[in-house]
Amino acid sequence: MYRYVCKTMLRRLFLSKKVSYQARLFSGNFRYLEVLNNENNVAIVTMKRAPVNTLNSELLSEISSVLTNLDETKCSGMVLTSFSDKVFSSGLDFNEMYESRPATIRTLVSTILEVIIKLYGSPFPTVAVITGHAPSGGCVLSLCCEYRIMVQNFQIGLNVVKLGYSTPLSIVQLMVNTIGHRNAELALTSGRLFTTNEALRVGLIDEIAKDRASAFDKANDFLNQFKVIPPIARHFTKQSMRRALLQDVSINGKIYVEDFVSLISRPKVQELIAAYMANMKNKKKNSN
Amino acid sequence: MYRYVCKTMLRRLFLSKKVSYQARLFSGNFRYLEVLNNENNVAIVTMKRAPVNTLNSELLSEISSVLTNLDETKCSGMVLTSFSDKVFSSGLDFNEMYESRPATIRTLVSTILEVIIKLYGSPFPTVAVITGHAPSGGCVLSLCCEYRIMVQNFQIGLNVVKLGYSTPLSIVQLMVNTIGHRNAELALTSGRLFTTNEALRVGLIDEIAKDRASAFDKANDFLNQFKVIPPIARHFTKQSMRRALLQDVSINGKIYVEDFVSLISRPKVQELIAAYMANMKNKKKNSN
Amino acid sequence: MYRYVCKTMLRRLFLSKKVSYQARLFSGNFRYLEVLNNENNVAIVTMKRAPVNTLNSELLSEISSVLTNLDETKCSGMVLTSFSDKVFSSGLDFNEMYESRPATIRTLVSTILEVIIKLYGSPFPTVAVITGHAPSGGCVLSLCCEYRIMVQNFQIGLNVVKLGYSTPLSIVQLMVNTIGHRNAELALTSGRLFTTNEALRVGLIDEIAKDRASAFDKANDFLNQFKVIPPIARHFTKQSMRRALLQDVSINGKIYVEDFVSLISRPKVQELIAAYMANMKNKKKNSN
Repeated sequence: MYRYVCKTMLRRLFLSKKVSYQARLFSGNFRYLEVLNNENNVAIVTMKRAPVNTLNSELLSEISSVLTNLDETKCSGMVLTSFSDKVFSSGLDFNEMYESRPATIRTLVSTILEVIIKLYGSPFPTVAVITGHAPSGGCVLSLCCEYRIMVQNFQIGLNVVKLGYSTPLSIVQLMVNTIGHRNAELALTSGRLFTTNEALRVGLIDEIAKDRASAFDKANDFLNQFKVIPPIARHFTKQSMRRALLQDVSINGKIYVEDFVSLISRPKVQELIAAYMANMKNKKKNSN
Repeated sequence: MYRYVCKTMLRRLFLSKKVSYQARLFSGNFRYLEVLNNENNVAIVTMKRAPVNTLNSELLSEISSVLTNLDETKCSGMVLTSFSDKVFSSGLDFNEMYESRPATIRTLVSTILEVIIKLYGSPFPTVAVITGHAPSGGCVLSLCCEYRIMVQNFQIGLNVVKLGYSTPLSIVQLMVNTIGHRNAELALTSGRLFTTNEALRVGLIDEIAKDRASAFDKANDFLNQFKVIPPIARHFTKQSMRRALLQDVSINGKIYVEDFVSLISRPKVQELIAAYMANMKNKKKNSN
Repeated sequence: MYRYVCKTMLRRLFLSKKVSYQARLFSGNFRYLEVLNNENNVAIVTMKRAPVNTLNSELLSEISSVLTNLDETKCSGMVLTSFSDKVFSSGLDFNEMYESRPATIRTLVSTILEVIIKLYGSPFPTVAVITGHAPSGGCVLSLCCEYRIMVQNFQIGLNVVKLGYSTPLSIVQLMVNTIGHRNAELALTSGRLFTTNEALRVGLIDEIAKDRASAFDKANDFLNQFKVIPPIARHFTKQSMRRALLQDVSINGKIYVEDFVSLISRPKVQELIAAYMANMKNKKKNSN
């Protein structure tokens, strides 16, 4: 069913523009991702780790691999989305953070930093089609894209402060670059989740779509404007805008990782994560 | 009368939330400040240097002491306000800048920088309840807080350029972080004072209140949202947002102080200050 | 005719304020500029390189000279404008970039960087009166001024990415300082040209005028507010706001020039410039 929806979407996305449709994986087989592309070389990367695209090391590694592959092909654009119509991604996997060895946490955090660098610095244009909730790590992935289109009636934001850990400096800067210093401070210190409408007003997303199909149409419009732009010039310009943050992550990445590992390992934070996980389990039980 | 108003406010602030009321000074006796707190450990710091809370070295030293005290207790939030319903603070005391020895100016400027560092970097959440005009130094104090609620029909801004001296770089950055680069440049180069409404529109304040009581209710709402946030995570997140400015002041503070002392000592600036002081005296005479 | 319009404008600008009118060149004779001033020492610098104020090395050198001259006189303000009611400036001269020796390109780029440093860092207040289209270099010149007033129904923006070259980092920063990081990235990566109304909404310009005369009135109002501000304090404050960018250009200017020269010399970019020039020639032919 999911596969069907995705292919239908893809067909809709490109057929509507009267280009012939061709589904092919850019490369490799993935457990948690589906990568489709068309003759225009736009890649649709769909996260499909049921139920809520929790970001574990494996899913993040797969995203990292895809980004490298796309970089080596003549990819002219990328859409990052979710198989689910309820959740874009729920964020980092607590199973790799709760009662985990430091090495496990370290791998998780290193891998998301790797994805941030590749996605934020990608030479091709990138769009997040946010088809559901996008808290914490879900929000971060979308912030690394160049454009965010979100289906209405969901929430997005960096709420990790509520779990007792703080946002690494580079991710703070992602928020500052997107919504400005004042709004970023208010949002991050309170762990605020924005409704789709609030997110648009503050600039956290760029457009609201009524459903997935309409979101893909808008993604298509965004990407189409770059057909007349020489890719190398576009890439250099994007680099100029994003270099400071990318340099910071390259230089200080290891420090961020170690700080994060020791933060997560604190008993108080472990307690909060446990409470959060129990709370989630209860919610799930009650909704069944 | 002032004391009565303050205690009534405090009672209103906390009784309305059904917590038992207890007024106690956090520590020490102050000449120009009143510090009250409740069981929730929110401190209400009221400047009470009549008539207009002019910031001399003594008042600033007292604010600095209070901030250190609060940092050492389990303070869960702070409201900075004024005893007066006309003026929040008129800014730095010209009596310590006009025809003063360099040592006197140096003490004044060092002390306000000390207050800026402690207030801007405080681990607990801070709100300015701006009950009257807040020019120059008054505006700076409010910018160091995390949230600004202002009673309507007053003015706020950094107007020091009109007196012939410029704003130190760190204070420029306070404005940039709050209202953005473009608006900060326009405001600082023209010494613009914003009405309450204009200040809200540009983001210099966060909310307008119709009177002091309503402003305290809003302050309370702002602080209450942090009850569910682990303080250490909140503090780290705040630090991430404010570190660059705090580091700059720590590293370059002494240079800023000396630059400011030599600027203030210029004959032309002394002339302008004299003219301003004469003008103020006249206004006062005419209003009697 | 042009001279007549300009003098009439100047007369209108100052006579309406009841100061006696006196037209005098600040200094020197220029081929592509007219420099007029009044007793208030406001200089009206009008670019007059027909037909579209294309920025060649000579015009840029003249602007650079004027800025040095004004700096040495008691200039109290400057208006930068165009003789044309259709184009403010069309940007850098392709004749010095297409099939040119590296030395020629280098001179062109060095000279515009020189102008940027002098104009952005000028001690006196500056206003761009944008009487027509202001793409690429035209937009850059206006961004270096402190205030932008634009006549309606024209376009402004940094569209160079479409020609295959990217914007040097310092010019990226000019955009970021003016319209914020998010809007700057969207605008620069897509080479977006803004209509006058869109430019106002995003903050790329400060005011819209219905015609040249009304634009000059607004420029006058902007400059008049500084009469009560001590010039040295204003200059220091402006420097505080602009120092980071100016330091960057001073330190890295030579690298930016060399990067730009090698970028422009790329065959692909040369091709795109050739196509653009042919396209312009066609448009001109068809409109005749």
